[in-house]
Formats: sequence, C-alpha cells, structure tokens
Amino acid sequence: MSPIDTFSRSVPAITIVGTGLLGGSLGLGLRTAGYSGRIIGVGRRASTAAQAVARGCVDEGTTDLAAAVGRSRLVVLATPLGRFAGLLEQISALDHAQLVITDLGSTKAQVGQDARRLLPVPQRFVGSHPMAGSEQRGPAAARADLFGGKPCIITPETDTDPESLRTVEAMWKILGMRVLHMSARQHDRKTAVISHLPHAVAVLLIRVAGACGGLQIASTGFADTTRLASSNPTMRCDIMIANRDELLRALEVLQDHAEQLRTVLVDGDAAQLLALLEAAQQKRDDWLESR
Amino acid sequence: MSPIDTFSRSVPAITIVGTGLLGGSLGLGLRTAGYSGRIIGVGRRASTAAQAVARGCVDEGTTDLAAAVGRSRLVVLATPLGRFAGLLEQISALDHAQLVITDLGSTKAQVGQDARRLLPVPQRFVGSHPMAGSEQRGPAAARADLFGGKPCIITPETDTDPESLRTVEAMWKILGMRVLHMSARQHDRKTAVISHLPHAVAVLLIRVAGACGGLQIASTGFADTTRLASSNPTMRCDIMIANRDELLRALEVLQDHAEQLRTVLVDGDAAQLLALLEAAQQKRDDWLESR
Repeated sequence: MSPIDTFSRSVPAITIVGTGLLGGSLGLGLRTAGYSGRIIGVGRRASTAAQAVARGCVDEGTTDLAAAVGRSRLVVLATPLGRFAGLLEQISALDHAQLVITDLGSTKAQVGQDARRLLPVPQRFVGSHPMAGSEQRGPAAARADLFGGKPCIITPETDTDPESLRTVEAMWKILGMRVLHMSARQHDRKTAVISHLPHAVAVLLIRVAGACGGLQIASTGFADTTRLASSNPTMRCDIMIANRDELLRALEVLQDHAEQLRTVLVDGDAAQLLALLEAAQQKRDDWLESR
Repeated sequence: MSPIDTFSRSVPAITIVGTGLLGGSLGLGLRTAGYSGRIIGVGRRASTAAQAVARGCVDEGTTDLAAAVGRSRLVVLATPLGRFAGLLEQISALDHAQLVITDLGSTKAQVGQDARRLLPVPQRFVGSHPMAGSEQRGPAAARADLFGGKPCIITPETDTDPESLRTVEAMWKILGMRVLHMSARQHDRKTAVISHLPHAVAVLLIRVAGACGGLQIASTGFADTTRLASSNPTMRCDIMIANRDELLRALEVLQDHAEQLRTVLVDGDAAQLLALLEAAQQKRDDWLESR
C-alpha cells in the first residue's frame, strides 16, 4: 500500500485547529497528496473556518473543538503559539485512547512542557516544526506546496508513543518534507540562530535605515535581507518571547562577531577582511549545495 | 527625436572598460534599447573581451584602451573599484575635448577625488552608481534588463559640465533607471546603510550559524537574509575598505539598536517588542509600496 493510503486508513479524520496560512496549507497539501480521510478545520470565528472550506483547505469548518476532536484520530495545533497551552488544556478533557496530537509551533520547549503538564497521556503528543512560511497570512494565502521540499523537525521524547510518532512523521513525509528528529532544546537553539536571529537582524536593519536614511535608494539586496521584517509581528513577537533565552544567546554571538568585523575595518586589514568574506561565501554556497 | 536616437547621435561610440556582469549588461541593455552607436569593450584579457563580443554585449573587444578611448565620446569604468585610479591616470593621457567619463562604482567619494586629482578636465567626469547587481559574475551572467526599474545615483559636483551630466543621465534613463542626484558623501553614507551594512550582516549571520550550528535546518528565510554573503568577495572587500568610515558608523548604529532589542528581550517586555516589530513591518511595507 502506498504511504498515503496507509496514512488515510490509519487516520480517517484530522482536526486542524487554526486555518490560517499554515493550517490551510496543511489541509490543501494533504488533499493534493491524495489523503482520502476527513479534514475538519476549527476556527475561533465561524467566518475564518468558512473561508477555509470555501478555499478547499478543509472539508468542514467549525468553532466546536470538542465535536471535531471526538471524531478525529489526529489533532494538529496550527494557531499562534500563545494559544497552545489553552488548547492543550481543552483537549485534555476531550482525550480519547487513539488521539495523536501535534503542533506547528516555531519553538518546541514550551509546548513540550505544556503537553507534559496538561495532557493525560503526554506520550501521544509529538511536537512538530515544519520550516515553511510566508509573510502572507490567512487561508487565502494557503498553498498546497508550501511544505514540500523543506525540512520539518519533530521533537519526540524518550517515552513518546512509537505509533503516534509514526503517524506524525508519515504526515510530513506525505507532504514531501525532510523529517529530522532532535530534542526540543536543540531545536530552539538552532532555530534561534537560523530563524529568530535573522528576523531580529532584518528588523534592526529597517530601524537603522529609518534612523540614518537611505531607503529611497535601497534595492533588491536590501529587500531580500529585510524580507523577514515583513512577517506577522504578533506571531513573531510570541516566538521571540517564547525563545528569548536562546535568541539572547544568539544575539550575543552576533555582537561578538560584529565587534571582530569592526576591528578588521578599523585596522583597514583588507587581507583579513577578504579571507572573512571568502569563508562566508564558501560556507553559504556549500550550504545551498547541500540543501 | 526619441531619447535613444538623440543619445545615439550625440554619442556615436562608447567604451566600456570591464566587460563582466555590469559592463556586459550595460552593453546588452543599450543594444536592446535601440542604441545605434558603436560599443567597444576593453578587457585586461583578450579572452574576456572576446567572450563579451560572443555574448553580444559589445560590438568589438580589445585590450587597447588608448585606441578605444580615442574613438569614443563616452567612457564607462565598469571594473572593480580598485582599478579606477590607475584607469583614470591612463585616460588623463588620452583625454580629448569631447570625452565624457563615468564609472559604475559602489562608492563615490574616492573615485570623485581621484578624478579631480588625475583628469585634466575633471568637470567632464560624472560619477554613477546604478543600484543593480547579482551574485553572479562575468559576461555570461550579463542581462539586458539588469538595470531597468532600479535607482541610479549620479554624483555631479557644482562645477560639472552640464553637457556631460546630460549625457550620463540620458544613458541611465534609456536603460529604464530612476536617476537620483546627490553628493558623493551623501551617497556613501546612504549606501553604507542600505547596501554595505546588509552585506556585512549577511556575512555575520553565516558566521554565527557556522559557530553555533543550525544550517542543516535553515530554510528560505535564512537563505534570503544571507543572500548578499554570496556576493563576489573581492569586489565586496574593495567596497567595504573604500567606504569603511561610513560602514563603521552604520555598524555602530546597528549595535546600538541590537542593544536596545536585548534590553526589551531581557525585560520580557512583549508590548514594547510588538510595537517595535509592528513599526519595522510598517516601515518596510511603506518602502516597498513607494518603490
């Protein structure tokens, strides 16, 4: 049996809580991949859920979490991070023996701790972070191919239920993601470096340009370097606060490296500067090659 | 008469010194825009010049600067910055009454000073900086549309010959660029903020990821934010050294803003953080809108 058929049989219904860009794209992607089960979208507002249905992201939209969870084998939390604890608390009262729970949050330590604290059987929770996004938001921006070809990190614990782990991993693989396992702590440390710090830096560059002037002549290079500054502020604020220890740590390393660069520039040491630029170019090109 | 016909008549031949990405794209762009004069490419190596001819960037390629300048009304320096002073010195011996000289350098104060010091009639020199580029290099990467729709800064002095200024400005407008005038000093200050600092920051982010790990899971956001780190290191090193005072100044402002962000994070002040992220998003979106 093909992976999608196996998955459809073992998960006859999925609840996606939050039908914005990520939740909507998950529904669209599963449907496009041939998922034959039921996809239920839960929204806080009936209008958003209805929009997700109209867009073909989910089969039905509802504001009734209890009814949706009761009929589902898998629940995916696709809301902003700040709502996870409240949702896990609600789900704890709705838990049934076959329920697998995952989330799409950009930080993993906090939700893992909340799941352990709040769920009756935290072993059936598997944290996920599909590394895909866009500055756009809402079900209107959902795309079936948002996840394909990108990395997805899952953060099982030593006591995670193997069946739940298989289910969550299968879903991401069906969407064409490269699934990686790591601890929630490792995840948060690495994403601070390659996601939250780049976002912070994009914001800083905009602030510097605002303070010093120059936007009038800014071009493609500036647009690309600052793209992340156009991300949803509420979502990004949640992430930065949730992962602030690791982000502060990464900011400190950045500041050390900025200080080193200052020294090279003050010295006018062209040879050392060139070596530094060549090493960075090489490292980036090797990384691009390896993707 | 159309602008391109006027330009073709007043400039029957152009010498482009350096037929890499920028020089090659200039030739291709002029030809595509309907320029009917002669385009002569001067390379240090006959093979590069021949490649530019084969690619259709220039009509003829040569290593003989003197012969090319003697037949041209306009000379465009499209080599790396580091060669400008030597070229201006050579051109000073070849100068003729109708010769207009410009350059495509990414910093403007240094070349302006060199022109004033070295040329017999520095009033016929007009500094240019077309804000267009790519990580690729060489005539093979040249594109007729590299310059279109982007800003081009020209840095005339109070005593610049009006006819020379008109000629240089006309060329950039024919290529579809938005021409802006400013002093060389203003140019260097602004480009430090919107071009050299973003490049430096891209390099720093790669260094931090190298030091802390995480590249394995880095995705589109990281790729965009660090794109400039894949720029030609030699060219970028020249630029950073030529403009190091302004870059150091911009780095200092960045470090101040990084310190402010650290404070907000250490305090866990979500309201202030959100305000900061919202202001940056708004500023970037307004800028994109205004382009």
